[in-house]
Amino acid sequence: MAVGLKENTDLLPIKGLKLAACSAGIYKNKRPDLALIACEHGTTVAAVFTRNAFCAAPVVVAKEHLDKGAPLLLLINAGNANAGLGRAGYDAAIATCKYLSNLYDCHMEAILPFSTGVIGEPLPVDKICNALPGLLEQLSEINWLNVNKAILTTDTVTKAISRQITIGDQPVSITGIAKGSGMIRPDMATMLAFIGTDAAINTNILNNILTDAVNKSFNQISVDGDTSTNDACVLIATGKSGIPLIDSADSEAGVKFSEAFTDICVYLAQAIVRDGEGATKFVTLDIQNGRNSEECRKVASAIAHSPLVKTALFASDPNWGRILAAIGRAGLVNLDVSNVSVYIGNTCFIDHGERSPDYTEMKGRELFQKEEIHIIVDLNRGKNNQKFWTCDFSYEYVRINAEYRT
Amino acid sequence: MAVGLKENTDLLPIKGLKLAACSAGIYKNKRPDLALIACEHGTTVAAVFTRNAFCAAPVVVAKEHLDKGAPLLLLINAGNANAGLGRAGYDAAIATCKYLSNLYDCHMEAILPFSTGVIGEPLPVDKICNALPGLLEQLSEINWLNVNKAILTTDTVTKAISRQITIGDQPVSITGIAKGSGMIRPDMATMLAFIGTDAAINTNILNNILTDAVNKSFNQISVDGDTSTNDACVLIATGKSGIPLIDSADSEAGVKFSEAFTDICVYLAQAIVRDGEGATKFVTLDIQNGRNSEECRKVASAIAHSPLVKTALFASDPNWGRILAAIGRAGLVNLDVSNVSVYIGNTCFIDHGERSPDYTEMKGRELFQKEEIHIIVDLNRGKNNQKFWTCDFSYEYVRINAEYRT
Repeated sequence: MAVGLKENTDLLPIKGLKLAACSAGIYKNKRPDLALIACEHGTTVAAVFTRNAFCAAPVVVAKEHLDKGAPLLLLINAGNANAGLGRAGYDAAIATCKYLSNLYDCHMEAILPFSTGVIGEPLPVDKICNALPGLLEQLSEINWLNVNKAILTTDTVTKAISRQITIGDQPVSITGIAKGSGMIRPDMATMLAFIGTDAAINTNILNNILTDAVNKSFNQISVDGDTSTNDACVLIATGKSGIPLIDSADSEAGVKFSEAFTDICVYLAQAIVRDGEGATKFVTLDIQNGRNSEECRKVASAIAHSPLVKTALFASDPNWGRILAAIGRAGLVNLDVSNVSVYIGNTCFIDHGERSPDYTEMKGRELFQKEEIHIIVDLNRGKNNQKFWTCDFSYEYVRINAEYRT
Repeated sequence: MAVGLKENTDLLPIKGLKLAACSAGIYKNKRPDLALIACEHGTTVAAVFTRNAFCAAPVVVAKEHLDKGAPLLLLINAGNANAGLGRAGYDAAIATCKYLSNLYDCHMEAILPFSTGVIGEPLPVDKICNALPGLLEQLSEINWLNVNKAILTTDTVTKAISRQITIGDQPVSITGIAKGSGMIRPDMATMLAFIGTDAAINTNILNNILTDAVNKSFNQISVDGDTSTNDACVLIATGKSGIPLIDSADSEAGVKFSEAFTDICVYLAQAIVRDGEGATKFVTLDIQNGRNSEECRKVASAIAHSPLVKTALFASDPNWGRILAAIGRAGLVNLDVSNVSVYIGNTCFIDHGERSPDYTEMKGRELFQKEEIHIIVDLNRGKNNQKFWTCDFSYEYVRINAEYRT
């Protein structure tokens, strides 16, 4: 189902990180739903979380624990979001951390919990705890893909990528996995992403690199405009590659790492859109020449969140009037529509606010038939550009979300 | 298809207003698509229009003409929005006004044009002009329902209502018609509404009454969150009832009229939602105890525009976690989720941020099975309340909007 996305099985192990996954019975039908990532001592971790005020219990706990020092274990479950449960949800997340800390002989605060799945159902703490001893036995450097499988919900395919770069003659590996398909929107999407590297990076720089990359990737995508209660993106640096500590984002090593890491985030973010619930098209929005990046984002967001644009995309219908209407309601100050041009690929649809003389319905149909569609909006009133990725809106989206809990 | 909405054929004529409708061949399949409303001299007219920057040519022309004095004719077509066409669209709207002004022997500026339908197709000026002589011959006080039929697009049913009130022992009649089904969102929806009365009201007061009523009705509804390029709501007061001029909104007569008019607007606004594209549920959102009405609107809007909430409503699935997630992402400053309660009708789902002990899945399913659903969100942090109306999101919505132009 995913648009132009295949499972990537060629993942590099990251020295200093061991992983494990299993089925703990959280999903009714047996499928992998529990995972562990264990970090060696000396690992630095940075994380960004959902900005939803109704954030899930594990988000609250993970933030608290992260504030207390470097984590040793990440405990992730799918099939249950542990959200919307108030105090009981918090207690449940703590209970799993406590149980695991006894087994692993570490402080409870060294464990970060993550959950994704249905909101409002009590977390099956017993099932999780019962599975933990077996999970710990399976920890291995080669389990990235298995962990990816265990964190999926409505995803149809895993989202994973590895890259190796060279910093000062030394190879540095980065491997990232993500899940996410619905409830996807900036700030952040219903997504979890875990990206490990054997570079050595101090926590401040790690946080900066992560925030910067997330703003260029996961915060520039939308499937349906809903924001999850559970999102998190975590960057884990073990320092086992042997390269010197990266302690400046502007150093040659810092820049090189940051670029590679951003590429990985963009790949994973696009993968989430490609596997968007019911998606049949992958759409790149390229908003150009705005006064600032904020107004470019507004235009991209209005188009990406328009059910009318999305259903027209699904139908391969070049109904560009809906794109215009979305631009027009994006709330830009003093927008002069007679300066706005819209292109699909290289073909001009709207030339300075009017239907382009070059445009024909046949050309439009041909372009909208494609699986990958590139929409360029030239606002012609500034020098800022912004890219954004989204997908179409199909019967399948309705079916998936109407049947999700049943 | 419309939820709890039947055609209302019992409409009062308004003295001083004559109407006519016909099929001018703007739609490919023969159906009514052109209408006229003629006002006697001395009539006052107030109108509000879409805030979309890409507003259609007729909106630009109607605003210009309205600024120049009281209109005598309203010319309305369906099947073509005359939008996204730049100068050519403007010229087309002017051409129809000019042609009609010659036939009617009035200034061109005394004609207000309105269009609704597909964006981006040239307006068939000849077809419209050819139909005008016949239309003028058919002008009659009893044609309200025929005009309602001629302004529909994807609507499945007419939306019309009449009320008679007594002001100072004299009967005053109000009759309103509306169209709108998709591209519906506050500010304003893809809708046209024309409401006539035989009360005498000066233009300033008429504008105040209209704006106030629109804010309580048409600006509190959403079908899909898209804003049309063509929306307008027009209030026409002929003054033929014989009651004294209403020249103050605070006078007894002013208040009485305003209340009745607001009721009519709320009825028509709700009718648009009930006939929302693909709608199977009519949902009232009741946001209570917010700090101000703006934050109540934000919460209502986040819920009403959430595809996940809307698909759950379609599935009659009490997936209240999605409602929580929508509240949480509405962007309220310092929202303490442990104060928020959510009710469906009289049943508490969320009690101060936690699943209510009284709530059972069975009770939830029973309540979500209903065709009309009342969701109350108690923010518990102020004294402002706000009502908002929306509908669900079905396969049929996707089908209608994927097939609209084909």
